[in-house]
Amino acid sequence: MSGRYRRLIVLTQYLANHPLDQVSLTELSQQLGVAKSTLSEDLVLVKDTLEHHNLGRVESQVGVQGGIRYVPDRNRTQHSLRQWSQALSDPVRMMSDGFLYMTDLLFNPRWIDPMGQLLAERFIHADIQFVATVETKGIPLALACARFLGVEVVLLRRDNRLSEGSALSINYLSGSSRRIQSMSLSRRAPVRGGRVLFVDDFMKAGGTARAAQDLLADFDATIQGVGVLVATVAPEQKLVEQYSSCLNWDEADPQSVKPSTWAWELCQRTSVPKEGIEHDGGIR
Amino acid sequence: MSGRYRRLIVLTQYLANHPLDQVSLTELSQQLGVAKSTLSEDLVLVKDTLEHHNLGRVESQVGVQGGIRYVPDRNRTQHSLRQWSQALSDPVRMMSDGFLYMTDLLFNPRWIDPMGQLLAERFIHADIQFVATVETKGIPLALACARFLGVEVVLLRRDNRLSEGSALSINYLSGSSRRIQSMSLSRRAPVRGGRVLFVDDFMKAGGTARAAQDLLADFDATIQGVGVLVATVAPEQKLVEQYSSCLNWDEADPQSVKPSTWAWELCQRTSVPKEGIEHDGGIR
Repeated sequence: MSGRYRRLIVLTQYLANHPLDQVSLTELSQQLGVAKSTLSEDLVLVKDTLEHHNLGRVESQVGVQGGIRYVPDRNRTQHSLRQWSQALSDPVRMMSDGFLYMTDLLFNPRWIDPMGQLLAERFIHADIQFVATVETKGIPLALACARFLGVEVVLLRRDNRLSEGSALSINYLSGSSRRIQSMSLSRRAPVRGGRVLFVDDFMKAGGTARAAQDLLADFDATIQGVGVLVATVAPEQKLVEQYSSCLNWDEADPQSVKPSTWAWELCQRTSVPKEGIEHDGGIR
Repeated sequence: MSGRYRRLIVLTQYLANHPLDQVSLTELSQQLGVAKSTLSEDLVLVKDTLEHHNLGRVESQVGVQGGIRYVPDRNRTQHSLRQWSQALSDPVRMMSDGFLYMTDLLFNPRWIDPMGQLLAERFIHADIQFVATVETKGIPLALACARFLGVEVVLLRRDNRLSEGSALSINYLSGSSRRIQSMSLSRRAPVRGGRVLFVDDFMKAGGTARAAQDLLADFDATIQGVGVLVATVAPEQKLVEQYSSCLNWDEADPQSVKPSTWAWELCQRTSVPKEGIEHDGGIR
């Protein structure tokens, strides 16, 4: 009996510390030194308890490997989406030059972590090896997302710094302001040949994401997806083919930052999407 | 009996998701709907199991409030300190101009999170309300530390950006390179009157920390502590009175990045420090 106490505690702690990770039942049963059938009974207890208390879900994965995945509470994610859309729709955050002030929220783990979870769930089947972002304000979202995906962040710098050694640089026209911008990546960055998710806080025309794609191509790294916190509704045609935004902002109606359809629907799902990522019809 | 299963799962999940947080026994017993005596029995099971499996410690806090605190495994932190010192002592990371390349490790959650935990434990009794950092490379450490302390990060910018609105700026001479640098903080940053921990990736003379202290003073915010990942041994006298570095680097002997005394000792403790933070005799 006390063996079961012990296993429930170890199982719960393990799952809580490995959110979104696919865990093999075979490995778990070996580590805990119990038969798979006993482990399955334990897991039913953990699953039912967590779900009953709104503490997240334990999802079974079928297939050759088989396994389970702990998904932190989606109600929390949905609540966070609602809070973001309310906060960013507040007129005090609108600045005279058309920017939204959101640095304070971006750098608050309680606000940004659920959005990182959302993007990680969105791209969970895309076999992502790196999350890339351009300094500075996209960094917290990129780190949160990378933590859930179990990968590291590749930092594109705005300018080449002494502490990065030699670097490849690219100049580009930002799609919205038509200003010349540049970004660079240290030749030491261990991204060569990797599958990359590009993450940023804000997207208007998509020029930054496009430039990142070009710069990473010089490292033989390919962008498998683009995830941003807020995208503007216009221009509808962005410079990258596909992207996923947690929130959409219609600048014609400033106080209207709204959760995107996929994000809202994902929060209502009772399981992680089975196939690859699906992109919105509305925004692409 | 199944009531105990349920409670062990909920308790373990709660503790794993609130590392370093002081949790009141009274509140916990109310939330779980059990008497404190029953809760105490449950906690003994959780505590013994986690400690037996090297999954962290559950520490009891005496005092008027009473409570418990979950501390993630310090063996992991110590292992991480060892990995950092080995990686940074590798000659391939030494660049011709005297910089250490460490961006890849700074932006890897698996590497930086344990260091955030270390600084959070160091300043756990300092009643910190904000973690401040200057862009860019200190951001991951600042975010990790802030997550453990349950607070947000205040971002000091290198230059004033359109998206920050009006800002206060300060120019200063960087203590080591004697170059003029500047940093600025948006007037919208919600740091006014707060108690701040300043965090950065690297410290040589301490000019950046000193400038941050001066800039934050204009917001009536006071720096209660300075925590960095790596500090150089020379100059011994820094521009800030006290600081805590996870690792020390003797530039005279380049391949010698070593864990600092307090950090190594903290990893060997079986409880969090009882009193306020204690600073090293060696480096101050």
